[in-house]
Amino acid sequence: MSWTLLKQAEAQQIDQELFTEYGFSVDQLMELAGLSCAMATTKAYPLEKQSVANGAILVCCGPGNNGGDGLVCARHLRLFGYKPTVLYPRTPTKTLYKNLVQQCTKMGIPVISNPLPEVSEIDNRFNLVVDALFGFGFKPPVNEEFKPLLDRMCQTTRPVISIDVPSGWNVETDLQSLPKSGVLKPDCLISLTAPKLCARAFQGRFHFLGGRFVPEALATKYQLKLPPYPGTDQCVLLSSSTA
Amino acid sequence: MSWTLLKQAEAQQIDQELFTEYGFSVDQLMELAGLSCAMATTKAYPLEKQSVANGAILVCCGPGNNGGDGLVCARHLRLFGYKPTVLYPRTPTKTLYKNLVQQCTKMGIPVISNPLPEVSEIDNRFNLVVDALFGFGFKPPVNEEFKPLLDRMCQTTRPVISIDVPSGWNVETDLQSLPKSGVLKPDCLISLTAPKLCARAFQGRFHFLGGRFVPEALATKYQLKLPPYPGTDQCVLLSSSTA
Repeated sequence: MSWTLLKQAEAQQIDQELFTEYGFSVDQLMELAGLSCAMATTKAYPLEKQSVANGAILVCCGPGNNGGDGLVCARHLRLFGYKPTVLYPRTPTKTLYKNLVQQCTKMGIPVISNPLPEVSEIDNRFNLVVDALFGFGFKPPVNEEFKPLLDRMCQTTRPVISIDVPSGWNVETDLQSLPKSGVLKPDCLISLTAPKLCARAFQGRFHFLGGRFVPEALATKYQLKLPPYPGTDQCVLLSSSTA
Repeated sequence: MSWTLLKQAEAQQIDQELFTEYGFSVDQLMELAGLSCAMATTKAYPLEKQSVANGAILVCCGPGNNGGDGLVCARHLRLFGYKPTVLYPRTPTKTLYKNLVQQCTKMGIPVISNPLPEVSEIDNRFNLVVDALFGFGFKPPVNEEFKPLLDRMCQTTRPVISIDVPSGWNVETDLQSLPKSGVLKPDCLISLTAPKLCARAFQGRFHFLGGRFVPEALATKYQLKLPPYPGTDQCVLLSSSTA
């Protein structure tokens, strides 16, 4: 099956429309997006199959909304029984992010910034790494500040779960223009609202769609071709290859 | 099994603590609460078993947070394939409620206020009635403004689903002090965060717990004895009797 793949500008336009036209708040959509990511993670990597320290997960959060999705995801993962640690290099100044961090810390989730853990430490201490560094608003190149973290996410042997867009990728990249090395290769991609064009270059095992809040009229307007969500699930598997 | 039953003041204190101590926003918790209500409704009254007009549901919303939960619930019910109609007698002035109403109307959910539909019309046009009039902040007596709507909810032959507290009930009522007639008798009760004391007087078929956001430390502090949520479910069935 082939689903809609959005260009960067389209994704930004749809996002804008959800806020202005439909009256959603960032808090609401981020809550649903983060929840869907935690649900997808649980489906792809069930807690009972995690071998390290009761489901320890490293959730790497960037400075924008993608990082906010990660913070929400971490909180729900904790409620689902996992043991998330949040890696949040930049200290937030916006109230939204401050509150999301406060929710995490008060719920017993360690939130660390510097020094960054070494790759070997990540490999030893965690089962999985969530990549919530950059989303559909990202434009290359990667800011110097986040390169050391992105490098570690590229080098870890643990499966990486990317929220919406694999960090560092051009939102509209294709397989041919993807460098052979030094680039993030997530094992799982969770597209939010609708997949972005770069999803065509994804070669990992699980591709989910999450963010179940798209109004029918909006889907019609943008001619979004997307699968139905089953039952009350907040995410749907688009494709999987466990070869 | 017996679960924690909260007094009104305890419920208010826990609510307050979620906002001040844990840094949650109303938008966030309302989103999760409303989502859990829509999920519980789907479990108790599956769409494919509804006989009237593709799952038509009347969602009656009051002026406060309980009404807000109802508006969110209606939106998710729509995403789950039901056909909700929102009955919202008071025109909202707060931005929060205005936005929630906007989300509903823009998603094609009819939002009506006056005149109220007659009981016979409710019985004929809808499969179910969601009661989101008053929550744990309610103190009797019922405001004159909302009596006509509450009367209709008492008289309908359709199953009523109460969010958190059956409207019109004292939050701490028991079975003995419940009048024999003229009082709302919901078929389903969805307690949020933790059941309130009045849940002991509930004699309907389904009792759910929803609002899966309670931090472990908060549950410990208030000695909340609650069942675990299964998997990633946002609600859990506390008891059911389908006699």
